Amino acid sequence: MTTLWTQARRAARMNPSIIREILKVTEKPGILSMAGGLPSADTFPVDALKAACDRVLTASPREALQYAPSEGYGPLREWVAARVAALGVRAHPEQVLITSGSQQGLDLVGKVLCDAGAPVAVETPTYLGALQAFAPCEPLFTSLVSDHEGPRPEAIAALPHDAPGTRFSYLLPNYQNPTGRVMSAQRREDVVAASQRARVPIVEDNPYGDLWFDEPPPPALASLWPEGTLYLGSFSKVLTPGFRLGYLIAPKELFPKLLQAKQAADLHTPGFNQRVVHEVVQDGFLDGHIPAIRARYKANRDAMAEALRKHLPPGCDWLSPQGGMFFWLRLPEGLDAMALLPQAVEAGIAFVPGAAFYAHQPDARTLRLSFVTLTPPLIREGVEKLGRLLHAALAIAAEATP
Amino acid sequence: MTTLWTQARRAARMNPSIIREILKVTEKPGILSMAGGLPSADTFPVDALKAACDRVLTASPREALQYAPSEGYGPLREWVAARVAALGVRAHPEQVLITSGSQQGLDLVGKVLCDAGAPVAVETPTYLGALQAFAPCEPLFTSLVSDHEGPRPEAIAALPHDAPGTRFSYLLPNYQNPTGRVMSAQRREDVVAASQRARVPIVEDNPYGDLWFDEPPPPALASLWPEGTLYLGSFSKVLTPGFRLGYLIAPKELFPKLLQAKQAADLHTPGFNQRVVHEVVQDGFLDGHIPAIRARYKANRDAMAEALRKHLPPGCDWLSPQGGMFFWLRLPEGLDAMALLPQAVEAGIAFVPGAAFYAHQPDARTLRLSFVTLTPPLIREGVEKLGRLLHAALAIAAEATP
Repeated sequence: MTTLWTQARRAARMNPSIIREILKVTEKPGILSMAGGLPSADTFPVDALKAACDRVLTASPREALQYAPSEGYGPLREWVAARVAALGVRAHPEQVLITSGSQQGLDLVGKVLCDAGAPVAVETPTYLGALQAFAPCEPLFTSLVSDHEGPRPEAIAALPHDAPGTRFSYLLPNYQNPTGRVMSAQRREDVVAASQRARVPIVEDNPYGDLWFDEPPPPALASLWPEGTLYLGSFSKVLTPGFRLGYLIAPKELFPKLLQAKQAADLHTPGFNQRVVHEVVQDGFLDGHIPAIRARYKANRDAMAEALRKHLPPGCDWLSPQGGMFFWLRLPEGLDAMALLPQAVEAGIAFVPGAAFYAHQPDARTLRLSFVTLTPPLIREGVEKLGRLLHAALAIAAEATP
Repeated sequence: MTTLWTQARRAARMNPSIIREILKVTEKPGILSMAGGLPSADTFPVDALKAACDRVLTASPREALQYAPSEGYGPLREWVAARVAALGVRAHPEQVLITSGSQQGLDLVGKVLCDAGAPVAVETPTYLGALQAFAPCEPLFTSLVSDHEGPRPEAIAALPHDAPGTRFSYLLPNYQNPTGRVMSAQRREDVVAASQRARVPIVEDNPYGDLWFDEPPPPALASLWPEGTLYLGSFSKVLTPGFRLGYLIAPKELFPKLLQAKQAADLHTPGFNQRVVHEVVQDGFLDGHIPAIRARYKANRDAMAEALRKHLPPGCDWLSPQGGMFFWLRLPEGLDAMALLPQAVEAGIAFVPGAAFYAHQPDARTLRLSFVTLTPPLIREGVEKLGRLLHAALAIAAEATP
C-alpha cells in the first residue's frame, strides 16, 4: 500500500534549525547561554508598549482589530521610508512592504526570485535563517569567498551570469550574523561595482545596523544601487522581537509580486502590532532608546572581549565586533565546536557551532557567541567556563596526538 | 542587455487577490460593502483584549516580547487541543502548530505537500485564498463536482491516484466560503469513505464552524479520519482578525516538516499576540462571546434573506445559509456579476463576483454577499440597491435580445 501523505520534493530541503533546537536545550534555568541571538530583555520598552496598546485599543479598536491591507499600515510605511532615508536609502512609502519579521521578507524573496537550480550567492559564512528561507525554493547556493570585511568583490565578479543566471547575492553589510563583521565603505563600493558589472542584484539584510558602538556603519548598499538592491529591515533588535515586525523595500518592478506573495502567505502582518509599534516610534522614541541599547551592548562587548583575552587558550582567533550582537571564534586546530557542545552544556554554557552557517564546506573550528543576552558578570562567568573547557579539550587533543 | 531581476517561474502563478483589490475600491466611505469577509467590528472584545494586553505586559513582559518557540505558546497549544476535542478532533498539543492566521497554515501546507504538476483537489467553487496559497507551488488543480452540500463523493472516488497522485482534497465542510453551504453528516461520511478508498488525504479548513445559527454542524472530517486529515482553525472569526492567529493540527508524520516550514517562513507567530489571546480565552470567555456573535449574525442573515426575497428579480437563486458569513447568489441567465460590479459601486454597493472562486471554468452568474459586516438596516438598503440594479440590468438584457 502506498503512503497516504506524499511530501513535496522541496520538503527534503527543509531542516530543523539547529539554533532553535539548541535553544530548546540551552535555555533551561542554570545554563549561561551565549547561543541564541536574543536581544537583552532589559532593552524592551515595556511601559511604552503597554501605553501604546492601550492608546490603540482606545482610539481605533475597530480598525486595529479588523483585517487590514497586505502592504501594511500606511503611517508605518511612511515612517519606515523616512527612517531608511537617514541611511541613504531613498524609497517611496509605496515601495515599503511590512512583513512578519524580516525572516518573512526572506521567505517572500525566495518565493519571488528563486527557482530550482538557479544560483543564489551567499557570504561565507552567512545567516542560517536565510539559507533556510531560500532552501525550499531549491536554489543552487554559491558561497562567496569572504574575509573580515565580508565577500570579496572578485568573488562577485566571477558569479555565473549565463542562464539561469545568479538571481541575487544575499549580503549583510552591518555586524553580520554570525561573524559580527562590517563592510568598510570601500568594500561596499567595490562590491556594488562588481555586482553592477556582473548584473547580479543584491538582497541587503540589515537587522543590526542600528547597533553600532563607536561610529555608524557606512551607507547602505541600497543607497549605492537603489534599482539593484532589495533592502530588509526589522524592529526586532531595536524594540522587540515578540511583535514580529519587519519590512522590505523593493525596487518598483518587484513590489507587486512581493505583495502578491505576501497576500498568499498570511494576508497581512497583524494590524494591531503595526499600529502599536507606530504609536511607539512615531515621535522619535528610538532616538533616545537605541543609544541606550548601544551603550549596554558596547559594555557587554567589552566584557566579553576582556574575558576572551583572559580565559581563552592560545590559538583561538577572533575579531572584536564594532556593533551588533556576536563574536565569531575560531578554535585551535584539532578542536571541533559541534563535538564540544555537549560538554559545554554539561559545564553550564552554550554557544552555536559555526558549521550551521555555511552553505557548503563548514569550518568545524568556528563558533558564535552572543554577548547581548547575558549581563557582563555572567558573560565573564560563561567565558571563563568556555576557557576551561577549551584548555581541557586542547590537553586531551595534545595527548591524543603522539 | 538582460533584465537585472529575474523572477522565479512560480511568480507567474501569483495574482493580486481580486477581493483585496475590490476591498480597496469599496471600503471608501459611503459604499455599502457586502464584498469583504470582514467580521462585524461590533463583535471585537475590545475591553477583554485591552485588559489582557495589560496583564501580559505586567506579568510576563520579558517572555512575551522575546523570541519564542516556532511551535507556538505551550498553553495556547494545549487550549487548542482541548477546544477541538469538542468537535470530535482528538489531538495531542504536540500536534498543534500556531500559525499567523489560518492563511499561513495554507501556505505551509502548500510548501510541504504541493509539487509542480501534482494534482490537488478543490471544491467547486472554493476559497480564493487557498488557491492563491497553493498556486506558487504550481499544483495541478482538480475541481471536484459539487452540489449544495459540497463535493460529490464520486468526484473524490474518481481522483487520479497514479503517480504523482492527488496530494490532498482541500475541503471546507462548515458554511463554506464562498457558498455558505454545509456538509451534512451523511455527506461527511461518504466523502471520508471515498477519500479513504482513493487514499487521498484531506486538508480540512474550518474558520466558520463556530458561527452556526440553529444547530451545530456535524463532527469534523478530522474526527472521522484523524490520520488522513490535516485540520486548520482560526481565531479571526470568533475574536479578532487583527491579531492574525490561527492553528493547524497535523498528523504526527507531517508535523516536523510543517514546523520546519514555519521556522523558515517567519520564525514564529508573535508571542505577545498568542499570550494575549490565551489570556482572553483561557477561562471560557468564548462560551459567552460566540453565542452573542451567532445571535447577531443570525439576525443579519434573516435581514438579508428577507431583503433578497423582497427585492431580487425572478430568476435569482440562493440558499439561506445555516451559519457563517455569506450568501451565494446565482443571477438570471444573461447577467455577468463581474460586468455589473462597476455599476454596483457607482450605485453605492459592493459584492464579490463569484468567478474568482473557481479553479477552472468560472460561473460568471455567481456572486458572494457578506451579511456580517453591515447592520440589518444597511443590509436592507444595500440589497434594495442590488435589486434595483439587477432589475435594470435584466431590462437592458431583454432589450438586447430580440
